[in-house]
Amino acid sequence: MRPYDIIKTKRDKGRNTREEIEFMIKGYLDNIIPDYQISAWLMAIFFNHLNEEESFNLTDVMLKSGDLIDLSQIKGKKIDKHSTGGVGDKTTLAIAPMVATLGIKVAKLSGRALGHTGGTIDKLEAIPGFRSSLSTQEFIKIANDVGVVVAGQTGNIAPADKKLYSLRDATATVEELSLIASSIMSKKLAVLSDGIVLDIKVGSGAFMKDIDKAKELGRIMLNISKKYNKKAVALITNMNQPLGNKIGNALEVLEAIETVKGNGPRDFSKLCLELSAYMVELSGIIPYKEAKEKLKKNIEDGSVKEKMKEWIKAQGGNELVVEEPYKYLEISENVVEFSSPQKGYITSINTEKVGSASMVLGAGREKKEDAIDTTVGIEILKKLGDRVEKGEPIAKLYVGSKSHVDNSLKFLKEAYKIEEQLPENLENKVIFDVLFN
Amino acid sequence: MRPYDIIKTKRDKGRNTREEIEFMIKGYLDNIIPDYQISAWLMAIFFNHLNEEESFNLTDVMLKSGDLIDLSQIKGKKIDKHSTGGVGDKTTLAIAPMVATLGIKVAKLSGRALGHTGGTIDKLEAIPGFRSSLSTQEFIKIANDVGVVVAGQTGNIAPADKKLYSLRDATATVEELSLIASSIMSKKLAVLSDGIVLDIKVGSGAFMKDIDKAKELGRIMLNISKKYNKKAVALITNMNQPLGNKIGNALEVLEAIETVKGNGPRDFSKLCLELSAYMVELSGIIPYKEAKEKLKKNIEDGSVKEKMKEWIKAQGGNELVVEEPYKYLEISENVVEFSSPQKGYITSINTEKVGSASMVLGAGREKKEDAIDTTVGIEILKKLGDRVEKGEPIAKLYVGSKSHVDNSLKFLKEAYKIEEQLPENLENKVIFDVLFN
Repeated sequence: MRPYDIIKTKRDKGRNTREEIEFMIKGYLDNIIPDYQISAWLMAIFFNHLNEEESFNLTDVMLKSGDLIDLSQIKGKKIDKHSTGGVGDKTTLAIAPMVATLGIKVAKLSGRALGHTGGTIDKLEAIPGFRSSLSTQEFIKIANDVGVVVAGQTGNIAPADKKLYSLRDATATVEELSLIASSIMSKKLAVLSDGIVLDIKVGSGAFMKDIDKAKELGRIMLNISKKYNKKAVALITNMNQPLGNKIGNALEVLEAIETVKGNGPRDFSKLCLELSAYMVELSGIIPYKEAKEKLKKNIEDGSVKEKMKEWIKAQGGNELVVEEPYKYLEISENVVEFSSPQKGYITSINTEKVGSASMVLGAGREKKEDAIDTTVGIEILKKLGDRVEKGEPIAKLYVGSKSHVDNSLKFLKEAYKIEEQLPENLENKVIFDVLFN
Repeated sequence: MRPYDIIKTKRDKGRNTREEIEFMIKGYLDNIIPDYQISAWLMAIFFNHLNEEESFNLTDVMLKSGDLIDLSQIKGKKIDKHSTGGVGDKTTLAIAPMVATLGIKVAKLSGRALGHTGGTIDKLEAIPGFRSSLSTQEFIKIANDVGVVVAGQTGNIAPADKKLYSLRDATATVEELSLIASSIMSKKLAVLSDGIVLDIKVGSGAFMKDIDKAKELGRIMLNISKKYNKKAVALITNMNQPLGNKIGNALEVLEAIETVKGNGPRDFSKLCLELSAYMVELSGIIPYKEAKEKLKKNIEDGSVKEKMKEWIKAQGGNELVVEEPYKYLEISENVVEFSSPQKGYITSINTEKVGSASMVLGAGREKKEDAIDTTVGIEILKKLGDRVEKGEPIAKLYVGSKSHVDNSLKFLKEAYKIEEQLPENLENKVIFDVLFN
């Protein structure tokens, strides 16, 4: 087998066999096949795509390049969730305790912030005392005892994907659906859960800008999970404005706490309820509709709040944060307002820019090595369709010692479009579609 | 400027500016831009092509990455010729003295054999004493005194092309017309002649298999030469069977000598006459039709033969080779016949395989480092449309000590297709088309 022929096959619209894909990926990981042949192959894939079988094989080879996370010592049904990334997306913090109140185990590995999107682990670490770095024994014990555990990704999950992703990132080959799907699934399927809910974000704050493409991505991902006999659902959700009202680490913990207490923003609360209900449905224990009712009830009667406290405590955090978040969460007191430059209606929000506005305050990372400040971020006061007067605050910036406030304001100014007339067809759905496999 | 954006522009069907192309090529040559970004860019170019302007810019940047060969000290009109490479293509050996008899200067830099195609310098070195390595002073003096000089490529011509070509060769991005055209023209235009005749070979022995593609390549190349105000003609010529009857270094010298004496094979003699006449036409001294008549006459009256002797002598070779080639050329006496396995008509010849059959005898190189044996090769006795009996010889193999005879016979057997019926539409043209700029 020669890399040349494998590249040429894909270049000429042919199909790469399992053996060929394995040869390329293993050879690349072992530094036998040079990166310039892999990048040419990736660009050929960009143009001619991978079919279902090829996407599965790429996923499988990448998945098997690293460790598998065995959850078999955790009793009961383990259901996972994955979001493709957005701005203000603190869903894991709220839905993990929600789902756990119905006896389903949520044993999750999560990532950190990069670019305009945040990371669950960074958010959790805004809780005083919270430890995201757990031994395997601790991870399993907390899952069994509490039903919820969220730890940082450790070990060697899909190293081939890691290496391939860096190369794609440098060669303009990221935006190919089959490669995106294989990349995500190789990491998610390495965690041997019983089912997974995929939250595919689409809009100005997501890397997918187009609903049809997002659906296609969802279908490829569902097809791959089907080949592993893993139950899955994909929700296509709205990222044309920040999710909820708060962006930044401690701020997002605050909003998740408000939400599990039943006081969260409408869009975020709705998304949490839907994602949770599908997670429960996938467990096979309670069907979707009934699950939704029970989840609402458990929020109302305080069960979810209690579960959240239990969880935080189990991971070393101060559970009082749930009762008195303003007291126990450290949020910057240095507030700068972003005010509307004119009167009118907010007709569009470039959400990626809002994410960047938060990042430059110090809430996120531009590069992997950057440190973050959990106390800073943005509170959104006006969202799509809202009316504003000239000079009325649109957002509040919680500023830290290393915040680039001017940059942040510049991003926000660029992000918000304010017009005199409210367009009739302004899209405000939280969930665009749900796909099943 | 970032390589990423330049790749993305081309990936998304955009146009790369002069500055972008220069940035990529110079960055690559200086090892600032890594090969994996260049190969991704090349694959994007494979799919979305370079337009006229981009091809010109790539050519120009690569050309200017190295030395220009100044021919201004050579008096008179200097006309160059380039062939895209075929099997049995010894045209330079015959046409250089032909053209020189009409006062046009042929001062050529030529290459060596690689793969299934031969190289002019290797062929010339089959002449006892012939020196292809000349100083600039010698090169200019011989051109002025004799009118013909052919030397090996020295110096630093288009180093960017050299580096880029190696990468294309490893990443399945060779077969893109705009890249092929830029590669050839960056080297040919570095030699500052007054005009160039391009011989674009098409067929089973050429890398272009399709006449329309060959014409497109010709047009791109003519467009590039136009931008340099260089007169050019492109001939699209037949490479569906070996050119002439002899393949291998001393054997091809022999055939070229026979041809300048008026005793060459029909197809090769015709091609030489056409190429020469167009070279003369480009000089502006004598028009095509008249040139053709004069060239014929000069072959008949022995002027071309005398010019060839003068030339060989000037470069240190034994000019008696022209008078008595069988005596002075060293050709292996160990001959093996390839006989027809059946009776019928020769309906097709995979000419690349015939080239490989000669290569494995030792007449060519598989890798650049390989040594060659100028005494070995193949004499073709039967060509397209010829009738053969079972057991009748189709070719003679001139075998050397390092020849892989079995391999060679295997290649020939695979190359020749013999059928009972002669198809009516068997294409036997020498020249398919002539394109002007």
